[in-house]
Amino acid sequence: MIKILQVGLGPLGQKIGQYIGERHGVETVAAVEKNPSYIGKDTGVICGLAPTGVIVRDTLSAAIEGNQPDVAVLSTVSDLKRISGQIEEIAQLGIPIVSTCEELSFPWDCDPELANEIDRFAKEAGIAVVGTGVNPGFLMDALPTFLTAVCQRVDTVEVNRFQDAQFRRLPFQQKIGAGLSLEEFEQRKLAGTLRHVGLTESMQLIADRMGWQLEHTEDIVQPVVAEEEIQSKAMTILKGYARGVSQIGKAYSNGELKITLTFQATVGESESFDEVVIKGKPDIQSRIQNGVNGDIATSAIVLNTAKQILRVPPGLKTMADIPLVSYFQ
Amino acid sequence: MIKILQVGLGPLGQKIGQYIGERHGVETVAAVEKNPSYIGKDTGVICGLAPTGVIVRDTLSAAIEGNQPDVAVLSTVSDLKRISGQIEEIAQLGIPIVSTCEELSFPWDCDPELANEIDRFAKEAGIAVVGTGVNPGFLMDALPTFLTAVCQRVDTVEVNRFQDAQFRRLPFQQKIGAGLSLEEFEQRKLAGTLRHVGLTESMQLIADRMGWQLEHTEDIVQPVVAEEEIQSKAMTILKGYARGVSQIGKAYSNGELKITLTFQATVGESESFDEVVIKGKPDIQSRIQNGVNGDIATSAIVLNTAKQILRVPPGLKTMADIPLVSYFQ
Repeated sequence: MIKILQVGLGPLGQKIGQYIGERHGVETVAAVEKNPSYIGKDTGVICGLAPTGVIVRDTLSAAIEGNQPDVAVLSTVSDLKRISGQIEEIAQLGIPIVSTCEELSFPWDCDPELANEIDRFAKEAGIAVVGTGVNPGFLMDALPTFLTAVCQRVDTVEVNRFQDAQFRRLPFQQKIGAGLSLEEFEQRKLAGTLRHVGLTESMQLIADRMGWQLEHTEDIVQPVVAEEEIQSKAMTILKGYARGVSQIGKAYSNGELKITLTFQATVGESESFDEVVIKGKPDIQSRIQNGVNGDIATSAIVLNTAKQILRVPPGLKTMADIPLVSYFQ
Repeated sequence: MIKILQVGLGPLGQKIGQYIGERHGVETVAAVEKNPSYIGKDTGVICGLAPTGVIVRDTLSAAIEGNQPDVAVLSTVSDLKRISGQIEEIAQLGIPIVSTCEELSFPWDCDPELANEIDRFAKEAGIAVVGTGVNPGFLMDALPTFLTAVCQRVDTVEVNRFQDAQFRRLPFQQKIGAGLSLEEFEQRKLAGTLRHVGLTESMQLIADRMGWQLEHTEDIVQPVVAEEEIQSKAMTILKGYARGVSQIGKAYSNGELKITLTFQATVGESESFDEVVIKGKPDIQSRIQNGVNGDIATSAIVLNTAKQILRVPPGLKTMADIPLVSYFQ
């Protein structure tokens, strides 16, 4: 039984808590959240489960008092600077960490100083730290990287994640900018609220493993425009308005385009899939039909990684550094 | 630069040697082969390359004299009993081992005593040992296992490797029993020369990681019969004769069929593909279109694994125990 400390009980933390409750082999033994409306409440209830007797605390020390967890699941923020202090605090308690922080998935290029600092205090504390999720963490980095295992030569790596949001909930449709005028889309884009975080980190992880020195990366966000009026269950999208977002990451080495990652989520996409295309010897074209549901997958991979992190030497790791993560029961 | 000791220069060893010659970052520094016609010859020439000055020797000590390799690539035999002595001999020299021995890919269930013995002397020697290849080693075990990383629940795992041998070389078509009468097919099957080695090991690796106790496994070899005369480039297959082989592995836990692996290679297969079908939460259906060329892939994954094995703690490992294997340059 793996005893989990949950840090962060936002929507993702709650889903993870629910998944812990559904599974054998893992249990939430402590929980921390800064949101005052959760403090003092039962973690199980907040996660939509029966009461578990585990009370949400506002500090780590209060949460783990009398019950040392095996692994911390840290699902608070996406950016490295804000999460590093939280990691340090947990590390000092000697608890290995699996985090959903996107920028933690491969921080070595974007912020080598902070990555090295996290690595150093993880090693001092004798614990391993890893950032994971469906994307970044799997579909656009670890999975294509693993598919190159059968290649004698790799020239380029391309990953395509296309999602039809037609039947997704309204918040998801809004998240991808569906229904916005192009001006509103541009404003949301400038505000940074349309961007999928982690595309650059995914490219850097792949490049690192392929041995490609990247001199330049791009991360382009653009609207996908409705060519006619579209009626989804949740909204009407006028002709000329955005029906979703397309985000393209490109990475160049020696003047050549080596990695292209495309993440496109729209209302009215013709099909959903996750595809990896490797050009090399041999070529590999792998496709997951209907794609991988991101909500389920991120919560699941966090728990599946929690088992492997126990077997990993101390330090800041990536999904490519640790033994193969898999489901377990 | 990873310095490789090649042990075994049969067709697969030669291909690996050729691939080493093609790549940066790896070089053959020593070679051992028992076949008298190779001893004393230049390894490069035997592998179809320019002479390298590395002379094939008949003993390990003669081969590595004055040049300690980083990793041994052991491509001699498929069965565990015959390879264990070779592993022990290499381990005693302190050299980590990547082997193409199929039964080594997951020997813990079929021969736990010998698996434990190999694990013990690897640990005593301070080196890691792993068995790999395209299959077993990747397509039917490590890859489906990794795909479950995004699953909150896994009910069943199915892998389908279908290959159209229409345009493959005559030896491959003969290997899969194409053109044989059903009596001849049965004889070849009884002689054990039609069987793909490793199906059971692949199922055991998956089950081990999923946490499924297997009470029963099956490994069924049967002919695929030509319903009409088939003309391939290499042969004519009469109606009623075998056009290839279908091998099905089934694994049961608690009376339920949990794993089904189908490896079918025929002349006239409608398409080639490698498919993983996971039933659970979520379902995952992943397909590599046109399939993975086994000859290329096995040699490539051996070299790609040679880099990772250097980072692994001592002992007998599986492809699921070691950090993600990938191409590198």
